[in-house]
Parts: sequence; C-alpha cells; structure tokens
Amino acid sequence: MLSDETTEMLRSGCGPLLPTVTETRPLRQRLFECLRAAGASSRADLARWLDCSPASVTSVSAELIEAGLVREIDAPREAARGRPPVSLAVSPDIHKVAGIKLTDDTHTAVIIDFAGAIIAEATMPSAAHRQPLAATLDEAETLLHRALTEAGMVPGDLAWVGLGLPGVVDHAAGVALWSPLLTERNAPLREALETRLGLPVAVDNDANLLALAELWFGAGRSRTDFAVVTIENGVGMGLVLGNRVFRGGTGLGMELGHTKVQLDGALCRCGSRGCLEAYVADYALVREAQTALHWNRDTAGSARALLETLYAEAKAGHSAAMSIFNRAGRYLAVGLANVTELFDPHLIILSGGEMRFDFLYADAVLAEVQSLTSRTGRMPPKIEINAWGDMVWARGAAALALASLTERLLGESRP
Amino acid sequence: MLSDETTEMLRSGCGPLLPTVTETRPLRQRLFECLRAAGASSRADLARWLDCSPASVTSVSAELIEAGLVREIDAPREAARGRPPVSLAVSPDIHKVAGIKLTDDTHTAVIIDFAGAIIAEATMPSAAHRQPLAATLDEAETLLHRALTEAGMVPGDLAWVGLGLPGVVDHAAGVALWSPLLTERNAPLREALETRLGLPVAVDNDANLLALAELWFGAGRSRTDFAVVTIENGVGMGLVLGNRVFRGGTGLGMELGHTKVQLDGALCRCGSRGCLEAYVADYALVREAQTALHWNRDTAGSARALLETLYAEAKAGHSAAMSIFNRAGRYLAVGLANVTELFDPHLIILSGGEMRFDFLYADAVLAEVQSLTSRTGRMPPKIEINAWGDMVWARGAAALALASLTERLLGESRP
Repeated sequence: MLSDETTEMLRSGCGPLLPTVTETRPLRQRLFECLRAAGASSRADLARWLDCSPASVTSVSAELIEAGLVREIDAPREAARGRPPVSLAVSPDIHKVAGIKLTDDTHTAVIIDFAGAIIAEATMPSAAHRQPLAATLDEAETLLHRALTEAGMVPGDLAWVGLGLPGVVDHAAGVALWSPLLTERNAPLREALETRLGLPVAVDNDANLLALAELWFGAGRSRTDFAVVTIENGVGMGLVLGNRVFRGGTGLGMELGHTKVQLDGALCRCGSRGCLEAYVADYALVREAQTALHWNRDTAGSARALLETLYAEAKAGHSAAMSIFNRAGRYLAVGLANVTELFDPHLIILSGGEMRFDFLYADAVLAEVQSLTSRTGRMPPKIEINAWGDMVWARGAAALALASLTERLLGESRP
Repeated sequence: MLSDETTEMLRSGCGPLLPTVTETRPLRQRLFECLRAAGASSRADLARWLDCSPASVTSVSAELIEAGLVREIDAPREAARGRPPVSLAVSPDIHKVAGIKLTDDTHTAVIIDFAGAIIAEATMPSAAHRQPLAATLDEAETLLHRALTEAGMVPGDLAWVGLGLPGVVDHAAGVALWSPLLTERNAPLREALETRLGLPVAVDNDANLLALAELWFGAGRSRTDFAVVTIENGVGMGLVLGNRVFRGGTGLGMELGHTKVQLDGALCRCGSRGCLEAYVADYALVREAQTALHWNRDTAGSARALLETLYAEAKAGHSAAMSIFNRAGRYLAVGLANVTELFDPHLIILSGGEMRFDFLYADAVLAEVQSLTSRTGRMPPKIEINAWGDMVWARGAAALALASLTERLLGESRP
C-alpha cells in the first residue's frame, strides 16, 4: 500500500512542484520513476497516478519491457479465484551500479541492482588527513574491489560508478574545486577515476547524494520539495525542488556549512572565519573538547573516541562539555533558520549516518529555530531527523550512478 | 541593436536556464516576451531568435495582432530605396496599469502603458510609523488618484494595479504576513485594495518587485538568472531563475534581511536578534548615528537628515561615523557571501532607489565578499551596482501588474 502522500506524488506525475515549472518529461521517464518509487504497480494504477490513458501506459510499458528495463510480474491475487493480476516492476538484473563515499574517517561503498536493492557493501578506514588525489583514488579503487569481491563481480559487471565526497564539487564538470580530503584544488575527480576504472563515473558533493538518497529511498520519497541538512565532520545541505536536486546558479550552491554566522568568527577548515561548520561540525567539537577535557596531543585516542568521551561527560553534567553541545545546537538553529528564511522549504530533513549527539537535535534547538523564524509571521518548516547508518552516503552515491545510467538509457536530463 | 547577451537570451526563447527545466511556454507567450524585451522586431528576426519557422511566427503574430496586443509598425528603412520593412511591436495603448510602492518615508506610484512606457508619476510623504491596514490603503488610494489626475485618467482606465511593500508578503495569497509598515499581521492586502478600487490587484514583497524591474527594464534584461539585493530601510533580496521570480518553497523565501549573521546579535525590527538588516539597513545606521553624533530625541531632524549628517561626518574623517559605515559594509559582505555560498548566482545586482552611502559599496566590501567566498575555490559572482532613483520600486510594482495582466491575456502562469 502506498501512503496518501506517495499517491498524491504519483498522481502529480512525480512532477515538479515549482510553481512556474510545467511537467514536460516524457511519459516513459515519469512512468519509470513511478515504478521505481512505488515498486510493482498495475498498468491501471499507473494510468491513474500519471493521469494518462491506459493505452499510453500500455504502449510506453511495452517499449520499456522491450528494452529490458521493466518486466511483468505476478501481483498478489486480490480475489479468492481467477488469474493473478499482472503488475509491472523495474527489472533488477539488467544493470548494476556502485556508489562510493569518501570521508576522513571511514570510506564506504555499496553495489546495488537496477531496482535499487543492495547487493554488497564494503568499508575501510581512511587517512585522517588531506591526501593527493592519486592516493585518495587508490583507496577508492581498493574499496570498490572489496565490494566487487563481496558480490562475486568484476568491474566490467558495473554500468556506472557514483562517487561522493565533502567539499565544493562541480557535478557537471566532474571536478572537486576544494575538498577537506584533498591536497589539490580543482581535482579532476571524474576523469581520473574513469581512466582508472574504465567505467563511466558521476561525482558530487556528499550532501547532494544524501538528498538523492532521501528522494529515492528515504523520507523524501513521498515529497517533491525538501531540504536535507547533514552534520558530521562538516555541515552540508542538499535541496530537492520538483523531484530534482537543485544545485544553484552555476552548480556550486547549497554550501550551508560555509555560510558565515559570525563576523571574524571561529576558523573553518576552508580557511575562512565564522563558517557555520566551524561551530557545529565534528572537528569544531573536537577542538573545544580538547580544551574542556584537558586533552593534549600526547593523549591517545581518535577524534571519534574524544567526541564519545565528550558526549558521555556532557550527559553526566560536565558543564564545559555541555556548553560545547549547547553552543553547537544554537548555531545549528541559526543555520536552519537561515535555510528557512531563504529557501522556505516545507520540510527540512536532518540526515546522516549518525545523529548520535542528541544535544544537537534537542527540543531546545527546534524551539530556537521556531523562535528565530516566527517573528516575521511564517510557519516554521517541519523538521525530521533521519539516522540511517553509515552506509546511507554510499547508497546516495549509488543513486547518483543509477540516475546517470537511467538518464543515459531514457534520454532524460541530469538528476 | 541588441547586445550579444540579449540576442543569446532571445535565441534561447527567453526560456528558463534551470538545468533541469525545459521551455514549455507557448510560442505566443515567448514571442510576446521577446517583443517586449527587444522593442520592434521583424518576423524574420523573431523566427531566428525563437528558433521556430517563419510560418509559426506569422501565424502567432496574426493571432496577437487580431487580439490587439501587437501591432505592425514601419521599421527604419535599411536600403536607400524600396518599401520600409514592416516590424512588430507591443501595442502600447491597449491597456494601462499602475504600480504603487509603499515605504515609511515616501510612497511612489507610476502609471505605464502596455509596452512599459511611463505615462505619469506621483509621490507623497508617508507616515514614519506603523499604521493599521486601512490607514495605509487610504494613503495608497490618495496617491493613485494623484497619479491618475496627472495622467488625465480615471480608475476605470486601469487594467491592473500592482502594490509592493517591505515585509513578508505571500504573493499567491495576496496577504502581508508581517510588514514594518503595518500594525496588523496577516493583513489581506490584495482583497482590501481590490474592494476599494474595483480593480484587479497584485501584491508582492518590494525586493521581488525590484527583481522584476531589473528583469524587464534594467540590468537583468539580458540575463535569465541573477540575484538582486536591496539595502534601504530594510535589506531585501529577489532571485530570478529562468526569467522568472523564484520565491522559494512555499513562496515566502529570499528573506535575506532576516537571516541571522550574529547569535544574540543586534535587535531587528521584526523582534528577532542578529538579523542582517539590524546591521545594514537605514534604521540600524540611524540608531548608531544617534550615539555617534550625540543626538537625542530633542534634536530636530528626520532620520534621513540624520543619516546625511552621519555620512558627511564619516567623509570628513569622524571616526565613530566611519566605524558605523565600515561595520555595516562588512556585514553586507557577509550577506552577499552567504547568498553566493547558497544560491551561487552568476550575478548579484545591488539595486535600489538610492545607493547613496558609497561606504557600503566600497572596494573593501567587494574585496571582503571575494575573500569570504574564494577559500572554497569558487569564482565570486559578478557584483553590479544599480542606482535607479526612487521611482524604480513603483516601476517594479507596475511590472508586476503588467505581468499579471499579460498572464490573464495570454493564459500563462504567474511571473
């Protein structure tokens, strides 16, 4: 059964809700997207959802079946007798794609089938410092081979690879202008990885991947417009408008983590002062934790261990530890309020692999967002918190690969 | 002659440049918009710009001529002999519309013809404090009648009225959720003014009007995507994407003036603390000027006079006066940097009736925007400064009226 919201979304043809934008994508693409979102569906339901004639659905689905992208399956029998009704579903086996997410703690990779189901996963610890592009791609390649081995596959079995990493990434050009993982600027990520793998590659900023993961597999599945905000070792944002990831004027927008929330404020990894992530991200908590807990460089332990200790101390009432999370929470509220004032989304999803520091998502923080935005009369957006586990980022990267592949197969535009 | 950029824009069918959006508006609308942007054009030029057949242009233009919206005119003779070539142009006389801009200093109104040419203007001093909706609309009505008298017209000669004011305005619903001019919240602006005038009315936030004025008559005419930032008694922002004003998820976005640039910062007119406009807008400068110049409530003089004195003192080297403008300029740089990080526009136009405090637009400010945004590798956007004179706001309101009327006549969607 579909939720009312999903039904509504499907009825609108999975179409854009931007008030000034009319749905123009071909029916074959909309039908395919509905199938991927809804799972198995009868032709009659598709015609109803897409508001088109049964004859059009029959004709377009015949095309997609002929191309091997869609198949007929027996649907559950509704009545006690009679033939089982026939439904349509995305063919899972026609293509497989991989997604890789790079971080400065753990890299993750996933292989999924054409219907989005996970075939294999792999993780590996990563360098905790900036590296040259070649060293980073060595790690990515090693990890991908682990996932392929896990799946009993070889590189040639993959149709596309999606790669995500933090930083300012030009999706269209395939270039990372700046990333906290890379020593280079303007690193030609896509071209370099395509040359290594001999496979088509798509790259993007990791928060855009998470927006895509929410749209295809998560809380955004029944929504056409929402913002995703991620807080881990950086702060990222993805925006979905009309079922598409919106990247701003020249494709490098949505850098919420580098908006300034304090003139001459705390130093950010990017070199500027006063960026939101310099108050909210893991690395910002780590540097204050060292002060609060009197840790120094001789004290053993990873950043992650330090944060876990800090969190335990805060829970136990350590006032300096509490003040670190409280301040981070208040700055997060400022960031979410600014997203609201500028983008006015219906829904903000706080999403990521771990939402483990619940001080950041406390009622006090959500109340502060409301207080900061309600003075001008607006209704604050709904805020949902979605903790997925580490593999969600790689799944988003795989969704990017799937979107690029589908685009090629159906002749559509970029996701 | 058209600039290369205008030609490029026209060639693209005046169409959206949102990467995921395809041009779907009917040819009659695109042809009409091209005519309005380009002035008189031959059918052959239109066919070339719109990338369609001469036969389609002939057929659509015959429709528009039949409806009285477009007319044939003699174009300048190109060769020394022969008949003058015939061009098409928007019929100026078929309809007239009015635009009204309300402020807490001076209200302005303008009446324009269907081709956008100004027929009459009027201004009147306004209340310098919040008023009930009825009193505000009394002023708007009085001003409109002055403009009508100036034009030798009566209200029934108008096809539409556009009204703009500062605040959070729901264009689609016609309601001002909050405005620094109004004592009420959720004021039903459109309905109340329509009842008074017996005419259709469109309302909007004033910065959106300025974006529309730039798009139709100004620096944005040859651009399809740009941001407009206005600094006067408040700070506003308008965003044009694909030749359309983009208002965010539920239509209340782009409130740059109420983004927070300082946690627990300066008090804003909206009641929140730390809003950008609480550091940059006229009223923010006025309250610090009172301290710097040792003015008190007994000292005679308007806010405008106080600011002029402050500006003169700053120019003469008064250090406290200089520090007020310097700080405002630095916060403005933060606001423009945040617009860049999030929306990544090609162009930001600093626009308004008066850009008289050039400390705000000094090279130092533009350099700070560049410094704040370049750490992540991006090219900073081009920033243009456009001082129009007070009447630009009313012209934007008239453009809104013209857009609403054209929408009705051509059956298109909202501007």
